[in-house]
Amino acid sequence: MTQTPPYLVGLVGTGVTPSLTPAMHMAEARALGLDYVYRTIDLTTLGLAPDQLPDILTWARRLGFDALNITHPCKRLVVEYLDRIDPIAAALGSVNTVLFTEDGQVGYNTDTTGFETAFRTGLPGAPVDHVTMLGAGGAGSAVADALLRVGTRRLTVVDLDGGRAEELATDLAGRHAADVDFAAPDALPRLLASASGLVHCTPTGMKEHPGTPFSPDLLRPDLWVADIVYRPLDTALLQAAREAGCATLDGGRMAVHQAVDAFRLITGLTPDPDRMIRHFHSLVAPHEVLA
Amino acid sequence: MTQTPPYLVGLVGTGVTPSLTPAMHMAEARALGLDYVYRTIDLTTLGLAPDQLPDILTWARRLGFDALNITHPCKRLVVEYLDRIDPIAAALGSVNTVLFTEDGQVGYNTDTTGFETAFRTGLPGAPVDHVTMLGAGGAGSAVADALLRVGTRRLTVVDLDGGRAEELATDLAGRHAADVDFAAPDALPRLLASASGLVHCTPTGMKEHPGTPFSPDLLRPDLWVADIVYRPLDTALLQAAREAGCATLDGGRMAVHQAVDAFRLITGLTPDPDRMIRHFHSLVAPHEVLA
Repeated sequence: MTQTPPYLVGLVGTGVTPSLTPAMHMAEARALGLDYVYRTIDLTTLGLAPDQLPDILTWARRLGFDALNITHPCKRLVVEYLDRIDPIAAALGSVNTVLFTEDGQVGYNTDTTGFETAFRTGLPGAPVDHVTMLGAGGAGSAVADALLRVGTRRLTVVDLDGGRAEELATDLAGRHAADVDFAAPDALPRLLASASGLVHCTPTGMKEHPGTPFSPDLLRPDLWVADIVYRPLDTALLQAAREAGCATLDGGRMAVHQAVDAFRLITGLTPDPDRMIRHFHSLVAPHEVLA
Repeated sequence: MTQTPPYLVGLVGTGVTPSLTPAMHMAEARALGLDYVYRTIDLTTLGLAPDQLPDILTWARRLGFDALNITHPCKRLVVEYLDRIDPIAAALGSVNTVLFTEDGQVGYNTDTTGFETAFRTGLPGAPVDHVTMLGAGGAGSAVADALLRVGTRRLTVVDLDGGRAEELATDLAGRHAADVDFAAPDALPRLLASASGLVHCTPTGMKEHPGTPFSPDLLRPDLWVADIVYRPLDTALLQAAREAGCATLDGGRMAVHQAVDAFRLITGLTPDPDRMIRHFHSLVAPHEVLA
């Protein structure tokens, strides 16, 4: 018999059935000798609306779940149903991990801590004087907070939706001692000519949205490029960046580290990130072939 | 990675927190290399009423449970929320195992099949010309059906509540080609003087209800005695029966075989009953010392 309790975890969101996170958690748990079941709770296939989130939380707790990961479109909505919230998640206003504890429902955001670790370990020593971030949605928001925590001095938020870019930039500027501005995509030639690095946070490059988010001509060798798309792992943007001589960071590392951090919060045990990355690569390889 | 899916199972009922069934399932699953989490859903500690059973079923299905075991006070109530029911459970009107399948919610009763196997394997060749059963509650009902399936020619149902004894006897007589009658406890001297065997299905002998359900003077060497109480495993009744020279069957074997049968239904895999019995004995041993 194992000495640790069995763990029960779920992932709540729309279209989460193909998520790789359950497999990542369960493989690592197995390697550590834990009883661990991780279920997808797919609002799409269940026909549930996001406003049923309070019921989902209540019943998950009643039925013995230890924790839930929360994804689109519930990451902001869930905040109001928590008893406590981690300061990093509170600042972000977004939660992707809820623990059911004796003290109630406690929220964390391991997207932002996951990107932070991914960046530190995947692009060690990369300069962060001026980072351009493309995509001001939920993922971009989590990434931006991480970039500012690792010391970015100037961050430019670029989005096709100018209002959304401005809103995120204003929010970030109010919470971080850094220079945060925003711009439209037509400013990219000017921005990328001088930026230290670029983080791409839109769906472009996924199987359903092929291509690069801007002309690869804008890439130059002393610009590092991070993508948060991980299906495929080697996006057209990353391929072009490598060809241009850029240092690159793929989206798999953030996907793994959000799981690493969630696993640690749920179990109190330290998973092996390298083992989880190797396992993740074995999971995404077939998708790359198909993509 | 294991080749089988991970399993998620729960036990619904009042006061189920101390149940040994979760530990039995998980230990066997571990021995078979399965990912398997089994949770208690204790109506008492959750403050839920039995009439919330439909919600429990709905949410357990939504949240990814493969199956639920159902116990007091929901075994009869659950029948109306099934899409299909096994014929043995349908005849009994009582379900202790619900599988969530692609064809809907399917009910079984492994209490009755569990006692049947316990009896066949624990008292092989025991005569069943006339069996006296003490206790006409839910457990007695499941045991009675099993006794009649294994060939009991005459069954006498004894209960302090004469109406309950009559009702069960009438129900059984209508469904089985056997002689089923009922009696009050004061008939036990007469009944046990000639019966082949006795099955005890009341709580007497449990830690909270110590003692024997009738005077041990009524026991005689050619009467076999089965108890369904399993905490403690060696009840005062079984001790007295052994002293009187009776063949005996303890309640642990039924407790294990209901779990064996449920495990087989849930996983489609055949567990090892002997391994489960050894594990069960390791779980109840401390309780015997305390009792």
